[in-house]
Parts: sequence; C-alpha cells; structure tokens
Amino acid sequence: MGKLLAVGTLAFDAIESPFGKTDKILGGAATYIGLAAANFKVETGLVSIVGDDFPQEYIDILTQKGINLDGVEVVKGGKTFFWSGKYHLDMNTRDTLATELNTLADFSPVVPEGFKDADIVMLGNLHPSTQLSVINQMEKRPKLIILDTMNFWMDNSLEELKEVIKHIDVITLNDEEARQLTGKYSLVRAAQEIEKMGPKYVVIKKGEHGALLFHDQNIFFAPALPLEEVFDPTGAGDTFAGGFAGYLAATENISFENLKNAVIQGSNLASFCVEKFGTERMVTLTREEVDQRLLQFKELTQFNIELQ
Amino acid sequence: MGKLLAVGTLAFDAIESPFGKTDKILGGAATYIGLAAANFKVETGLVSIVGDDFPQEYIDILTQKGINLDGVEVVKGGKTFFWSGKYHLDMNTRDTLATELNTLADFSPVVPEGFKDADIVMLGNLHPSTQLSVINQMEKRPKLIILDTMNFWMDNSLEELKEVIKHIDVITLNDEEARQLTGKYSLVRAAQEIEKMGPKYVVIKKGEHGALLFHDQNIFFAPALPLEEVFDPTGAGDTFAGGFAGYLAATENISFENLKNAVIQGSNLASFCVEKFGTERMVTLTREEVDQRLLQFKELTQFNIELQ
Repeated sequence: MGKLLAVGTLAFDAIESPFGKTDKILGGAATYIGLAAANFKVETGLVSIVGDDFPQEYIDILTQKGINLDGVEVVKGGKTFFWSGKYHLDMNTRDTLATELNTLADFSPVVPEGFKDADIVMLGNLHPSTQLSVINQMEKRPKLIILDTMNFWMDNSLEELKEVIKHIDVITLNDEEARQLTGKYSLVRAAQEIEKMGPKYVVIKKGEHGALLFHDQNIFFAPALPLEEVFDPTGAGDTFAGGFAGYLAATENISFENLKNAVIQGSNLASFCVEKFGTERMVTLTREEVDQRLLQFKELTQFNIELQ
Repeated sequence: MGKLLAVGTLAFDAIESPFGKTDKILGGAATYIGLAAANFKVETGLVSIVGDDFPQEYIDILTQKGINLDGVEVVKGGKTFFWSGKYHLDMNTRDTLATELNTLADFSPVVPEGFKDADIVMLGNLHPSTQLSVINQMEKRPKLIILDTMNFWMDNSLEELKEVIKHIDVITLNDEEARQLTGKYSLVRAAQEIEKMGPKYVVIKKGEHGALLFHDQNIFFAPALPLEEVFDPTGAGDTFAGGFAGYLAATENISFENLKNAVIQGSNLASFCVEKFGTERMVTLTREEVDQRLLQFKELTQFNIELQ
C-alpha cells in the first residue's frame, strides 16, 4: 500500500445546473481527490486550509473514508473558501458566480511529518508557488509528482507556473489550457511542447470527450463513459486526478502501461462524480459499482481486429 | 468477398483551409466511400451522376481501385455537382461558399443489374427519396443497409427522411444532427430515440472526438487518432462510412462485435483522409500503411486492468 499526499482546496460550493441548484455543499479539489483515491488501497493525506465554519460533518465524511487530515489547518474565526458556479445545457461551459478566497488567501501549506515520504504527490489546482512549496517540503523525491492547473494561473502567474512545472512528472490540464500554455492548436504538438517544459507525461482532459495521455511518441486515449444524463460536472477533473493518483499509489507501479490503467481508473471514477450534485455520488460509491463500471469501460473500448 | 453498393455524389470540390486552397478537385460522398472501401477485399459498385465535364482522369482513379462505375450516369452537356467550402482553424466548423447542384438536381439513381444482389448497401448523403429509391430497386433485402444523412434533410425533408430511416439497419450522423433529429441532448438518449425510428445500430460521428456505436444497451467508442495536423476534413465522414461498409462487406459478418471492428476501420481510414487536401491521401494509401496505423489504434485504446 503506497502513500499519497494531496494538496488542494477544501471548500463550500454552491452549484446551479439545468437540473437544479444547491445551497452551500462540500466541495474543493482536495475533497474530490481524496474521495476518489479512497477507492484504492492507499494511505491518503490531505494538505489544505479551512475556517472554523467547516462543519464536523464534512470532516467526518473524509475521515470515515480513511483520509488523513493532519495537514489541514483550521483557522479560528476564519471562513472557508467558497465557490459558486452555474452550468449551461452543454455542461462544458460554466459561469463563476462567486469566488471568496477567505482563509485560502493566506494559505501556507505544511506537509505533516507522516507524509513527507509519500510515494506520490498530487498537487491540486492552486497558486503555483503553493504547489512548489509542497514539493520543497518533501524529505525525499517522491516517485511521481502530478500537477493539476488551470488557465487562471497562466493568465496571472505564468512564470511561477513554468517554474513548478519544471519539477513535476505528470501535468493534467484541459485542451484549451494546453493550447493556451503552448500556443499550439494541435494537442499532439501542445503535448510535445509541454514535455519540453519538464513533465515526462502530459494528460489532456477533454471533459465529455475523454482524456489523452502523452509520453514521448506514445499516446493513450480514454473516453468518458457516455451517460444518459450529466447532472453536475463539478469535481469531475479532480476526481479524475484523484483516481489517477490513487491507483498509481496503490499499485506502486509508474510504468507507462500502468499510467494507461490509471487514466481509465480516473475516467471511471469521474463518470460517477457527474451523476449527482457535488460529492454525493462519490460518498456512497462502492467497490462493486466501481468494478462493474470498469467492465463497461472495457466493453466500450476494446476490440479485436485481426489484420488481414 | 462480399458485394457493396454505394450511392452518393461524384463532385468537384474547391476547398479553403488555414493551410491553403485548392482549385476544383475530385470530391463527393461516393468518391470517398469508394476509395475507402477499396482498402478491403470487396466488389464495390457506385451509383451516381456526373456531367461530361467530369474528367477521364477522375474516372481512372476510381476504376484503377477496382471500383465498378456501371451505375454512374454521364449527362451529355451537363455539369457535375460542385461544392466549395472554407474551414476555420478548429476544423470543426466550415462555411459553404458555393453549392451548384447541376446534374444532381435531376438525379434518378439506377442500380445496375450486377449490384441488385449486393450484400451491403451504403446510402451516402443525398435526398432521402433518392436513398429510398435505391433500396426499392434491390432484388433481395441486403444483409445490411447503412444510411448517412445530415441536418439539411432534417430541415427540408424530415418526413421523407423518417420514411427511409424505417427501412435501414445502420444510420450514421453527427452529434448535433442526432440531437436535432430527436430533441435529446444526451447522445445516449438520442441514440435510443433513433433506434425506435427503425435502425438497429446508430453511429454518432464526433469528428476529432471520435465515433460512438450504439445497439440496444451496448455502446462502443472509437477515438479519432490524434494527429499533429488536420489538413482538410473534407470527406472524413464519408471515408469513415466507406471503411465501415467496406470492412463489413469484406468480412461478411454483421455481428455487433464485427461492427465494432468496422468502426475502428472507418476511423482508421478517416485519419488518413484528413492528412492532405481532398482525396489525395486516399489515392496513394497502401495496405501496409493501413495495417500499421491499426496497430497505433490498438496502442491508443487497449489497456489491461486486473480488477483488484
């Protein structure tokens, strides 16, 4: 059983979609990463920050999944990061209605002693300097450092982002972000450019159109499972990342062949995440459901052509 | 070796893309279908119409690939169908600059005697009544009738389209067209609705995002091969259809498992089509290149997860 350290937000989310709207519910990148990784035999520790308005009920949801929260700072009198967004019918675009950084504005992550030797580090979407600080606190080079980021940091902190990218092994970002980061329209070329910046592996997330894994001349593709209804895409990307990282930590195998499997595992878990609002589906998810849907992924993608 | 009958346009195309522009070159659905099917051991006959401005050189390209043109009417003094379009950088949208129906305006297809017993019929994108007329001329029910269509017929000839759809086995259309035809946003639900209209199999083409095959509760997905450059998407959908139909005719096996393979073969051939302007790449394509790229498709999609 490997050890996974993940840094990211714990948050309140308020979500509107064509299917309804929520009050403030449990959200945040670290939450989704932790819940996804909890589907594998892995020791997961989260590094994050909340205010004392973050309810015990949410803490319990995470700890009951076996997630270690020693690295979560609770700021007395502080308020937890809040995000609100609205999805349109196509679910690929969303409007941010509110972002209140609150305690996140002064987040200085502290990696707990017990996770300074983690095998895998998952740097959830945060300021690149915060991500770099986590790397610098590790007592030995982790076997694999995975970084998720987004266009906001390319717009506002590009140099810091490029610096942290030098130190990682895997980057995950979406197709538009890959294009923005490189100025290349072709995703094949964009991935080649990103590999020159540092990461050996590039994962380009395309939402309902699946995810691509690039490594040298190799490309692997995992579709998103076609669903009758996508209810709420919030957290799907973080769930993908958490499943990807959690599977690699559990299997203790970072070969390209196993990274392919990790992409499938991440895609599989993300397909559950979007079925209900927020974390609802991830909290109730069982091993049997996960395995059952993995068989669907096999049926969806596997074929057997004999060359004529 | 099975027999494939395909109906569709033979055309002049003039294409603009970010990579350049062409004068009038060989185009048309039947052209691309025939060239794609020619990669398999199949006897292919085309039903179409041209004017006597259609050059012998183009005729030779098709006949040298072993394509039977007994069903192609040449109208003396007539002009061949002409289409002109312009692609933008994302290659998913195009503007039609000109459409001159010419001889196509009075096209009344005549299936040659030698193909009235074809195993597979591929109805390329045309007026639905023209497509239906081909079905009605077959002397026995083909093993499989495949129909390709587009939004233009949904806008202008919906009742005729619904009529011909009742008589076919496989429909191919793109994601937006599937949504328009059914009023369902979810492609899973759209496919379910289309199956109720007649076809047992629904293929939804998503361009650079691949293609989905639906049948009852089964779904299969084939990605598009990620390419460094998509040069000209013209004919990719018809090439997909021609590869799909040609492979099924050659293997004489219309099981769902083999339809999966046919989707991969169609996607594989389409990946070549877009590499150069018009039919240029399809004309020079060799069996070895096709097989080599099939291996790339395997590497792109095949994984081996052992359930824990």
